[in-house]
Amino acid sequence: MNTYKVFFTKEKKEVSVQEGTTVLEAERIAGLSPDAPCGGAGKCGKCTVKINGSVEKACQIKITADLEVETIEQASEHRILVKGTERAVAFQPELEILDLEIQPCKVGENSSDWKRLCEAVNKKLREKGSKADRVFRPKLEILPVISHLMKEKGGTARAIVSGDEILELKEQDDKPVLMAAFDIGTTTVAGYLLDGRTGEQLATASALNVQTEYGADVIMRANYSLEHGAEELSACIRVLLKKLIRTLCKEAEKEPEDIYQVSVVGNTCMHHLFLGIVPDSLVHAPYNPAISHGLTFPAEKFRLGIHPGGQLIALPVIAGFVGADTVACLLAVNLEEEKKMTLMIDIGTNGEIVLGNSKRRIACSTAAGPAFEGAKIACGMRGAEGAIEHAYLEEGRLVCKVIGGGKPTGICGSGLIDIIAGLLEAGVIDETGRLMEGPRVVQIDDNTKTAYLLAGPSESGNGKPVYLSQKDIREVQLAKGAIAAGIALLAEQMEITLEQIEQVYIAGAFGNYMDPAGACRIGMLPGILKDRIIPVGNAAGEGAKLALLNSEELERAERLARHTEFLELAALPEFQDEFVDQLEFPEE
Amino acid sequence: MNTYKVFFTKEKKEVSVQEGTTVLEAERIAGLSPDAPCGGAGKCGKCTVKINGSVEKACQIKITADLEVETIEQASEHRILVKGTERAVAFQPELEILDLEIQPCKVGENSSDWKRLCEAVNKKLREKGSKADRVFRPKLEILPVISHLMKEKGGTARAIVSGDEILELKEQDDKPVLMAAFDIGTTTVAGYLLDGRTGEQLATASALNVQTEYGADVIMRANYSLEHGAEELSACIRVLLKKLIRTLCKEAEKEPEDIYQVSVVGNTCMHHLFLGIVPDSLVHAPYNPAISHGLTFPAEKFRLGIHPGGQLIALPVIAGFVGADTVACLLAVNLEEEKKMTLMIDIGTNGEIVLGNSKRRIACSTAAGPAFEGAKIACGMRGAEGAIEHAYLEEGRLVCKVIGGGKPTGICGSGLIDIIAGLLEAGVIDETGRLMEGPRVVQIDDNTKTAYLLAGPSESGNGKPVYLSQKDIREVQLAKGAIAAGIALLAEQMEITLEQIEQVYIAGAFGNYMDPAGACRIGMLPGILKDRIIPVGNAAGEGAKLALLNSEELERAERLARHTEFLELAALPEFQDEFVDQLEFPEE
Repeated sequence: MNTYKVFFTKEKKEVSVQEGTTVLEAERIAGLSPDAPCGGAGKCGKCTVKINGSVEKACQIKITADLEVETIEQASEHRILVKGTERAVAFQPELEILDLEIQPCKVGENSSDWKRLCEAVNKKLREKGSKADRVFRPKLEILPVISHLMKEKGGTARAIVSGDEILELKEQDDKPVLMAAFDIGTTTVAGYLLDGRTGEQLATASALNVQTEYGADVIMRANYSLEHGAEELSACIRVLLKKLIRTLCKEAEKEPEDIYQVSVVGNTCMHHLFLGIVPDSLVHAPYNPAISHGLTFPAEKFRLGIHPGGQLIALPVIAGFVGADTVACLLAVNLEEEKKMTLMIDIGTNGEIVLGNSKRRIACSTAAGPAFEGAKIACGMRGAEGAIEHAYLEEGRLVCKVIGGGKPTGICGSGLIDIIAGLLEAGVIDETGRLMEGPRVVQIDDNTKTAYLLAGPSESGNGKPVYLSQKDIREVQLAKGAIAAGIALLAEQMEITLEQIEQVYIAGAFGNYMDPAGACRIGMLPGILKDRIIPVGNAAGEGAKLALLNSEELERAERLARHTEFLELAALPEFQDEFVDQLEFPEE
Repeated sequence: MNTYKVFFTKEKKEVSVQEGTTVLEAERIAGLSPDAPCGGAGKCGKCTVKINGSVEKACQIKITADLEVETIEQASEHRILVKGTERAVAFQPELEILDLEIQPCKVGENSSDWKRLCEAVNKKLREKGSKADRVFRPKLEILPVISHLMKEKGGTARAIVSGDEILELKEQDDKPVLMAAFDIGTTTVAGYLLDGRTGEQLATASALNVQTEYGADVIMRANYSLEHGAEELSACIRVLLKKLIRTLCKEAEKEPEDIYQVSVVGNTCMHHLFLGIVPDSLVHAPYNPAISHGLTFPAEKFRLGIHPGGQLIALPVIAGFVGADTVACLLAVNLEEEKKMTLMIDIGTNGEIVLGNSKRRIACSTAAGPAFEGAKIACGMRGAEGAIEHAYLEEGRLVCKVIGGGKPTGICGSGLIDIIAGLLEAGVIDETGRLMEGPRVVQIDDNTKTAYLLAGPSESGNGKPVYLSQKDIREVQLAKGAIAAGIALLAEQMEITLEQIEQVYIAGAFGNYMDPAGACRIGMLPGILKDRIIPVGNAAGEGAKLALLNSEELERAERLARHTEFLELAALPEFQDEFVDQLEFPEE
């Protein structure tokens, strides 16, 4: 078999590949991060590249000669929400910075260095109000430092402590003590750098989840890891966190080595893959997680480049498809102490829904799919420049608002909802979801697709038409139907009417940009709750931060996870009926 | 003359010997190292073997037919005692082997794999009589195994558990579960392989501590590691343990990977160096240890080649110069429950002494030095073939017994005491330690040394004279003086007379071979206690085993370490006086 050279002109990288390798694979070999949510099936059209001037799907082109490839700039601004509800909590972190005096060992006193260190730490903790002395887990690495500090600094020392671990012992220097929180989404990862002394947020950063190369949704990635082991997917998300940590530190002009604690949240699949667990049990019924407790580990094994004594905290998960991100959302909106009957929906690549209050909570997961993140939608894209993010009817005509203000190149999640809501209102789409005949309803792709034309080639930003196809409408019906059915069945389980829901929190970036009226118009959310909808931004990321800022929140997370019931929709006999009922659009 | 085959069943070795050869000689021909201190005279009874089920002295059996021989307790080349007091304890190890059934996760039941495993383990522990459920530390490595065993074995599993750690989860196979105990002495390391199901001892092995290359005593090694770091000395002792583990397993026909728990004892310097701690604080006053608590760590970081989930247990230490080996000795003689006022002396390269009983215990360390191990003695050697191990006066003449029965090549510790005792008795040495003029008192090394000639070049095993020099006598005076002063000061501290000491346990290989009468004659031990001396063999190794065999013994070790007072002799104003007083030999 022949070997050919592929040269990526933008990146100035050349790789040698065997005949028949796809350009997508060549990109991976070259260390690029191609965006391929459909996993290389040729369906999503996200992996386009330029070859000899023409745009091609990288996954569909097999290499049969030496080739020059120009990658197409993925929109870089991903407008991921890194601000959350910012619930105020006291700054009482698990991570404690203690300046102390280790007493010297007197002649005739039989005391070990470690014992005198623990006494000095407990003395300081008592001064800070701690009642019971802690028994610390012995740490061999610290012993030579005690001896050194006794000699060089007369016992003046700084200990960084978390629970029963002394993470670090050093002299009282000027170095900062940092913490970092991460929300590992299926599609995007958001990170936050916090000051360990004040809790102040020093920087935020986000990036696409590089695992996207292995499939857009959690099932594809779980299947991949079932076949190939978790190492590959695990390593790529760990490396991404390491990079984000560097980015965060660069922005804040800090050093990664000064980070002592990292918290992570994510859905159960992301959680398991990050930890290196094959999410085996998520692929088959009853879809239970391998482990659901909150976990604290030495961070060293995850190679995040932080302080070698640093700690990793993975928040607990509720169920196989209701993960630590949902727990973090519940933490952020403080559902444990909420008196009002609250509906919390986190619409990301999956849609997790929790209904309840301080007394009782029920959670479910819906296969909302990544439609609202642009996948499976013909002109779908993420919320980047060129995306139609909103639309409204003006004198019977659909007016689109484009991110960046230029010509449109596609539709993002919030735009998708508005467009369908507008077309329903205008009668262009009927309640069954069928596109009616009308002025901009056209046949495209050699008459194979009926679509509503939003922008012709000359009106669009890339010379290609931007449209909403009949199939796109069906995808949205499936997604919104699943969410609506989930809400209805949770209310039934809680034995309340939808009317009795007092507030609706919408978490996630999409939820933040989504127009509540549109979401109600298409029937994703009950119309009756239209005025009770409150976007809470990236509540998952906020929860990850709260776990670092206050040690009681970490305990609260465990209680929330253990005391939120899980409703397995697929196991309910009435689910299919409810789902089919909810596929139609409501009459206004 | 006929030739017969002798098959050694344990060693699986066969040799052909001529008719009339003794079994002892056959053992030597087979490359074994039979223990025959009397040189085959039929006196010592150490060379016993089993032939056709009956125990015989190997030196007395002449071979007249093909024979199968089962050796008894292989004495190694270095005659290190690997048998201790063998105090009987119930077999209730910390390490537990639990055969269990993990329940499947039912549809609709929201339970993690880890949770169901912990439930299955706790169920089994309750069946075994445990009252409170344990909260196990989550272990990521085990999660895929749960999933695998659910699928392949319907949840039938075996867990190896220690405290709050699940060390291993696997199918119910035929593999053994093993434990190993080590006594890391300054000069020699002894190891024991135990069956984790029965507590039975499967093999013993010993080797010279390879750190000897870096210095004979702990101070030299501590200084070396202060200058070069602990890594080198630490690595060499860890590698030695790994080798001993292989030897033990080979002997027992087992695999190192089936060892799940290893206990180690050693003096504080050996303890620290094994763990990788620079014994910094042992070099300068007040000579406190870096850490004195009992420690349990994942064994993986010590690279002993055992099961990757295995555990390392380091017993606690009392003080900088009273280590985990002394704690292990106290465990072996069960001083915590001893009513009688007991003196326990462990004479190794250092001499640790403990006086007390169940009510109160005081320990001290004496710089006995390695004189009794052959170091600093002109013709000193360890207790191996050719060493004079005993001597007695016969009609005013000193008669020496040589290990192996051949010509002498040197003097080992027990021989040294007997020779000096004999010469004191004969008046060749006076009470100040001076060598008087007499028949075998000669000037050697060009008249630079006065010495008592034990064997001239023609009488010795290596063509060199074997003698006791004036300087050797001084070395012994220093060593025995230190021990005697220690005993006197401990008694003073305890406010008792020497007479009130009811029993004297002598631990260590040297103590085992040493003649109590000789030790009293030279004034190392109070003459008044001569009939109360009980050699207890390698009590330190025995204690290391006890910690594995019964989890309560591990707790007892911690109590013994924390509740044994330490007397710093050097800090006592009366020490120098007492020491000088004790340098002289007692008048008989």
